[in-house]
Amino acid sequence: MDLATVIGSILGWILMVTAILIGGSSLLGFIDPPSIMVVIGGSCAVIMVAFPFESIKRLPTVCMQTIFTKPSSPLALITTLVEFAEVARRDGILSLEAAASEVDDDFIKRGIQMAVDGTDPELIELIMEAELENQIMRHQQSRGILDGIGKYAPAMGMIGTLIGLVAMLAQMDDPSKIGAGMAVALLTTLYGALIANLIFLPMSDKLALRSKEEVLMKTIIIQGVMSIQSGDNPRIVEQKLHTYLPPTIRDAEAAKAAA
Amino acid sequence: MDLATVIGSILGWILMVTAILIGGSSLLGFIDPPSIMVVIGGSCAVIMVAFPFESIKRLPTVCMQTIFTKPSSPLALITTLVEFAEVARRDGILSLEAAASEVDDDFIKRGIQMAVDGTDPELIELIMEAELENQIMRHQQSRGILDGIGKYAPAMGMIGTLIGLVAMLAQMDDPSKIGAGMAVALLTTLYGALIANLIFLPMSDKLALRSKEEVLMKTIIIQGVMSIQSGDNPRIVEQKLHTYLPPTIRDAEAAKAAA
Amino acid sequence: MDLATVIGSILGWILMVTAILIGGSSLLGFIDPPSIMVVIGGSCAVIMVAFPFESIKRLPTVCMQTIFTKPSSPLALITTLVEFAEVARRDGILSLEAAASEVDDDFIKRGIQMAVDGTDPELIELIMEAELENQIMRHQQSRGILDGIGKYAPAMGMIGTLIGLVAMLAQMDDPSKIGAGMAVALLTTLYGALIANLIFLPMSDKLALRSKEEVLMKTIIIQGVMSIQSGDNPRIVEQKLHTYLPPTIRDAEAAKAAA
Amino acid sequence: MDLATVIGSILGWILMVTAILIGGSSLLGFIDPPSIMVVIGGSCAVIMVAFPFESIKRLPTVCMQTIFTKPSSPLALITTLVEFAEVARRDGILSLEAAASEVDDDFIKRGIQMAVDGTDPELIELIMEAELENQIMRHQQSRGILDGIGKYAPAMGMIGTLIGLVAMLAQMDDPSKIGAGMAVALLTTLYGALIANLIFLPMSDKLALRSKEEVLMKTIIIQGVMSIQSGDNPRIVEQKLHTYLPPTIRDAEAAKAAA
Amino acid sequence: MDLATVIGSILGWILMVTAILIGGSSLLGFIDPPSIMVVIGGSCAVIMVAFPFESIKRLPTVCMQTIFTKPSSPLALITTLVEFAEVARRDGILSLEAAASEVDDDFIKRGIQMAVDGTDPELIELIMEAELENQIMRHQQSRGILDGIGKYAPAMGMIGTLIGLVAMLAQMDDPSKIGAGMAVALLTTLYGALIANLIFLPMSDKLALRSKEEVLMKTIIIQGVMSIQSGDNPRIVEQKLHTYLPPTIRDAEAAKAAA
Repeated sequence: MDLATVIGSILGWILMVTAILIGGSSLLGFIDPPSIMVVIGGSCAVIMVAFPFESIKRLPTVCMQTIFTKPSSPLALITTLVEFAEVARRDGILSLEAAASEVDDDFIKRGIQMAVDGTDPELIELIMEAELENQIMRHQQSRGILDGIGKYAPAMGMIGTLIGLVAMLAQMDDPSKIGAGMAVALLTTLYGALIANLIFLPMSDKLALRSKEEVLMKTIIIQGVMSIQSGDNPRIVEQKLHTYLPPTIRDAEAAKAAA
Repeated sequence: MDLATVIGSILGWILMVTAILIGGSSLLGFIDPPSIMVVIGGSCAVIMVAFPFESIKRLPTVCMQTIFTKPSSPLALITTLVEFAEVARRDGILSLEAAASEVDDDFIKRGIQMAVDGTDPELIELIMEAELENQIMRHQQSRGILDGIGKYAPAMGMIGTLIGLVAMLAQMDDPSKIGAGMAVALLTTLYGALIANLIFLPMSDKLALRSKEEVLMKTIIIQGVMSIQSGDNPRIVEQKLHTYLPPTIRDAEAAKAAA
Repeated sequence: MDLATVIGSILGWILMVTAILIGGSSLLGFIDPPSIMVVIGGSCAVIMVAFPFESIKRLPTVCMQTIFTKPSSPLALITTLVEFAEVARRDGILSLEAAASEVDDDFIKRGIQMAVDGTDPELIELIMEAELENQIMRHQQSRGILDGIGKYAPAMGMIGTLIGLVAMLAQMDDPSKIGAGMAVALLTTLYGALIANLIFLPMSDKLALRSKEEVLMKTIIIQGVMSIQSGDNPRIVEQKLHTYLPPTIRDAEAAKAAA
Repeated sequence: MDLATVIGSILGWILMVTAILIGGSSLLGFIDPPSIMVVIGGSCAVIMVAFPFESIKRLPTVCMQTIFTKPSSPLALITTLVEFAEVARRDGILSLEAAASEVDDDFIKRGIQMAVDGTDPELIELIMEAELENQIMRHQQSRGILDGIGKYAPAMGMIGTLIGLVAMLAQMDDPSKIGAGMAVALLTTLYGALIANLIFLPMSDKLALRSKEEVLMKTIIIQGVMSIQSGDNPRIVEQKLHTYLPPTIRDAEAAKAAA
Repeated sequence: MDLATVIGSILGWILMVTAILIGGSSLLGFIDPPSIMVVIGGSCAVIMVAFPFESIKRLPTVCMQTIFTKPSSPLALITTLVEFAEVARRDGILSLEAAASEVDDDFIKRGIQMAVDGTDPELIELIMEAELENQIMRHQQSRGILDGIGKYAPAMGMIGTLIGLVAMLAQMDDPSKIGAGMAVALLTTLYGALIANLIFLPMSDKLALRSKEEVLMKTIIIQGVMSIQSGDNPRIVEQKLHTYLPPTIRDAEAAKAAA
């Protein structure tokens, strides 16, 4: 579970509410149902035009992905792959079948299985690379709808403010009401900015990073399976895969090995 | 038919009208013929300069494409292609001629026909890839005009507001009319924002996704035809093509197969 | 001649003038020589810093290109190339010399001439591809100056408005003149927006499309010449080149052939 | 140590404070705790949503990297590599083991060690290129969080200003307080702009340049190790590597050699 | 010398000063030392954080490059290279040594020298391509600092205006001073816009074009040297290199040749 997402989200809203209360205003002054309708309703409407139903239905799942993710550990992954390389070298590649079935990562399992089945190395690489590329594309589509809300919510906020301003200016009989009118008009811009900057844009950023991490893991797996399949020396496999680790982790690892 | 586009479009406008009415204004106050003329007329004029006549004539068709699209099902497509691979393996590739003629997708038909005709594999791939690339280019051009309106309509709105402001400020004799003057001046900005954000930009987004879906379908077809042509084992064909499916569909499929 | 450019340009300005007149202002109120000097003069000065003299001298020619262009017909081009392929197949490639000399497209002529001369196919492709790439680069440079004006004119407009505002605010003795002062200050922003959005940015968009059309034509020619040179069957040549046509044209063509 | 970063950072804040004091305001008028809370607190909250904890923990280290960097000298590096090439040519590649162990750059050491070990040249290149690419990716991630703050801090500033404006406009009873209210509302926009433009965005720019320098150094090392490994003439090695130097350094070098 | 840069720069400032004077203001009203300090000083400070000292030291040189450039003539260059090809074909490649030593372009000299020395063609291409790529990278870095000022100067201008507005609004005792206060506050925005749009951004644009011209020249040289080295017929060399010329120059050339 990604606590940072949860804490950050809650903290952000608490700060905004506190800022309003400290400023001596009541929270009620910041809640205007028609404004909420324009910004949230309008964004929903536009999102329905901009994205297919299936993407919209997956929106809650996508948002949840920013909170629930199994942490990825490239180091543990490399250790597993190097062990596999040792087993393959010692007992032959067929002996990997049992070991692989215990891993709970589907991608490794399928890769090792293909190697065990004696599938042509080029075909293994082709299939695994295609899967990686298609996954990247799917991740981009998932993020697309978050970015879409991050783009259209502020636009809806601006449209709401323009509607409010036009309405207020057209009936400017009582100057004492101008302030209140403008306050309400500005609320939609505020809503749009909050929805975009406090919720959807940072979520999209986090998913982008998670996607990159997953790509790194899958890249290591592809490299590892290809190395194992070609019967590389386990030391070479380790050396190849360690290039994917940041120097800090690598040094800690080396220190541990030396100790 | 893409109901989301239709519902979203109608919902968006209903929300905007409701927001105006709830605010206590009359809709009439938001309709100003000269402002409409500047924004819509001006955008049309600029679009005529920016795009060739043929593109402009195709605009209604392009807009309709966001509503009327046959849903694409990669899973059904893969099933069809795997069946073809089985037929080709069992009865020879020539036996595909009849089967292919029943498919109503022109792209598969042409691909299979070339394979049946014994066309050189490299030439088949070249022709099919070229067609895919040219289709991508044509889709981009179709979207180009939607994006163009999404760019120029707000610019025309800003120009209209500037014209209105200059006119109002230059003859500011009666301060009581300032409000009304500014209200009218802001209307063009509102029109520009609505045209861009409620109609054309989300339509362009949807077309972009539809285009990606079609590219995925055509990519699967090319991969499938090439595999069938080279006499691949149907299981390999299936495995290769399944990498294009998201894991959720793949798992559901596997569960069904196991059941 | 590209009528759309001409009609759109005239229509745009008529609409702007009408909008001003309908609003009850006189056109004279929108013409302020010092503001024109700041925006147009300033843009010219900046363009001289940003672009070399030769590019600036070519600006009128570049603008004319958005109006005067020979329409490109990929279908006619393909027909010509397929005919050439038939002649080459029937009477030998040398017999193309006469046919090619009658085409008025220099690029085809040079390509066929090299094929007739027995130039090495790789060299033909190299030379023709290089010419295509260099043409794309030259087109981008031509558009660069249009985009440059589209970028700097609004900036000059903003600078003019700032100068006007500072001048007005600094000597705000007579409040009744504030309106007139702001009106004049806003004029430069209006000028900048008009110059960019009504003239140069849409022209740049049109040139971009024209450039893509020319690239498509030249790509078809290269593909055709290479096919003819390698002695491809005219049917194969046709099939290869038809992938560059949109399906609608292709279907119309097929219907005509069947009729 | 990068003095420019330190001096520039201090200078920037001194200038801002001086500007405030010269304008006759007291610094206290520019410090508003709730505004600071909204902008800094809000940015922290959003950054927690947008980035994983590990990235946030590394933020101080990343910022320090803009100050503490060992200066990179491509010329000294090339001299070292050419010396290695001479040693390898004269005494055999095995004699490099001792020399390499004295260099304090890990990347050269590992490269030379692999060459000495007789590792396959393609594998050496593969491993070193992979390390370079992974380093580029890690640098981009480090900068990502700086850019993230540079993007969200101004957004939080705008949100704070909107909250302040709405609060002020809603309770506009005493017109004399409007000024003070707006002043406070604008403070958050000011904070956001300062945080982004005076701290994080320039830091990100500097890291980008440092990263490019490191990439250049590593590229030279890879090229050098590959050349040494293949037994190139030291003169050729020098000539190849000198192409990475700017002409000014190269000329100075040539002048020195000739002297 | 690039007169356009000089004339444009001077013209731009004359126009701005004239616009101020015509508007009836005194120039002095537009000069405010603290504002200048915030914008220019602040930009310098930020640039020190964002760029290394060496880049900042090279800034005057980089600016001078927009004024002093030797005009590049691809046509003359091609003529020279074709002559070299003729000499090489007639008298052998060794006879080029003397001819090459008379050219004052270092890049041709080194290229021809390597060809004369019998260096491996692939190595010549590698070295020359590397030099070209490294030059492109260095040019981008030079422009980076111009773009950096073009980005940070307006940001500093906005920060200055915010400081001015907050100061003014906080002490709004005397309404008659509001105008003057706002005028001064807006000055920093004006300065930022002038520095970016009248000086550094157009300079960066010009350098980008100059860089492209130099790349074209070097590309022609590489192509020419490779052709000469492989003993191509001078006619083929000419034909290959002429593809880099725009059709207008080529036609003029052909007309001259025919005359």
